[in-house]
Amino acid sequence: MSFILVLGGARSGKSRHAEALTARHPAPWAYLATAEAWDDEMRARIAEHRARRDARWETLDAPLDLPAALAAAGSRPALVDCLTLWLTNLMLGGHDIPAATVALQAALDARAAPTVLVANEVGLGIVPENALARRFRDAAGRLNQDLAARAASVHFIAAGLPLVLKGEP
Amino acid sequence: MSFILVLGGARSGKSRHAEALTARHPAPWAYLATAEAWDDEMRARIAEHRARRDARWETLDAPLDLPAALAAAGSRPALVDCLTLWLTNLMLGGHDIPAATVALQAALDARAAPTVLVANEVGLGIVPENALARRFRDAAGRLNQDLAARAASVHFIAAGLPLVLKGEP
Amino acid sequence: MSFILVLGGARSGKSRHAEALTARHPAPWAYLATAEAWDDEMRARIAEHRARRDARWETLDAPLDLPAALAAAGSRPALVDCLTLWLTNLMLGGHDIPAATVALQAALDARAAPTVLVANEVGLGIVPENALARRFRDAAGRLNQDLAARAASVHFIAAGLPLVLKGEP
Repeated sequence: MSFILVLGGARSGKSRHAEALTARHPAPWAYLATAEAWDDEMRARIAEHRARRDARWETLDAPLDLPAALAAAGSRPALVDCLTLWLTNLMLGGHDIPAATVALQAALDARAAPTVLVANEVGLGIVPENALARRFRDAAGRLNQDLAARAASVHFIAAGLPLVLKGEP
Repeated sequence: MSFILVLGGARSGKSRHAEALTARHPAPWAYLATAEAWDDEMRARIAEHRARRDARWETLDAPLDLPAALAAAGSRPALVDCLTLWLTNLMLGGHDIPAATVALQAALDARAAPTVLVANEVGLGIVPENALARRFRDAAGRLNQDLAARAASVHFIAAGLPLVLKGEP
Repeated sequence: MSFILVLGGARSGKSRHAEALTARHPAPWAYLATAEAWDDEMRARIAEHRARRDARWETLDAPLDLPAALAAAGSRPALVDCLTLWLTNLMLGGHDIPAATVALQAALDARAAPTVLVANEVGLGIVPENALARRFRDAAGRLNQDLAARAASVHFIAAGLPLVLKGEP
């Protein structure tokens, strides 16, 4: 089934927008969380997102095996928040990014319920001095392009406001 | 009275666009400057902006007490350039950001003349390695979202060209 | 003759979009490459771009004298990829940026065939800590504004999808 891609910067309101898009479909909804609470800053961020979601959301942790979590979400509308952290986890763990991308696309194709994907746009600043950051930036940009090409709709969020790059509002 | 929010990156032409929006209303205009000239680079930037403005602009310095400066601007159309430097000054001075944001919104609501606010979009690059920079990025994103939700119009500027995210061109 | 400016972040798909815009005109096409292969990372990036282009593209190297290369392209439609690397080369070589910008604009005005220019948007992240990076960011923003003001069309690319900021799609 088709999916929507929600792109935006840090603190752009992309998660909130993606939750609203998911909530257009009947509850319960699956929240596929890719974040890992590896420090206090990340724990606070995860807690803040979780506090916003009510009991109609069921959280599935998917730091690495996102395709399996998409399958486990079954017939529930699913929100993946976010692809960029998933990519970070894959890179830090030394996983095969092209293979993981293919598996993700197959899992999306196999879904029988709507899916909303959140991703960060990270390529609009100065070239990072750190080589790993440059490789990450390249991989994130490629992943966003691959998914945008297959998405039914792509929304870019700035200051909480959506801009439709493709498809329907 | 309602206000317009002008968002953009560094050297995107957002100040020039905001000046043109303010100048749609009859002069004199109040220019609320939040920049502090703490080094030569900043002094040069301030001088360049000031040289562009003619005698119909009255400059009010507002590095910290922006609500008071908005009140002092009275019935003149006012341009705030920029919110992101104001936020920087607040953070470096250890001020209470949520309280300052509430006071800013009250001052905007109390205005009887048009206001144009300039802000930087800073969340579209790689995650900064510096923790203070990450906190600043989060605070700037939150402030932009809060103001965009209340603004009558929001314009995003890239390469000097405006994109209407909300409201009127 | 008029030109099109294609703006975007790293790995946004801007080169591919610019190639498609150039290929709306009859081949052969001139590819004006500003990249210099000063390390393995850059060599790999150049090779990847080159592999995508077929024999209808003739590559002209233009790391510094872009005006001469635009003249040498003659009546062929030309793609410049990219202005931001050209600016980097000029800055690292200590060249006069305003003079080079004027020469570029004269060379564009003198063209009798269509031209597509690719440039990076680099101002949407956190202020760089490095003073040279800040000066580069300012120069890149100014160059993008100058060219956007003269361009017939300006497209902003995110995740491979174009957003028309000015002119025609």
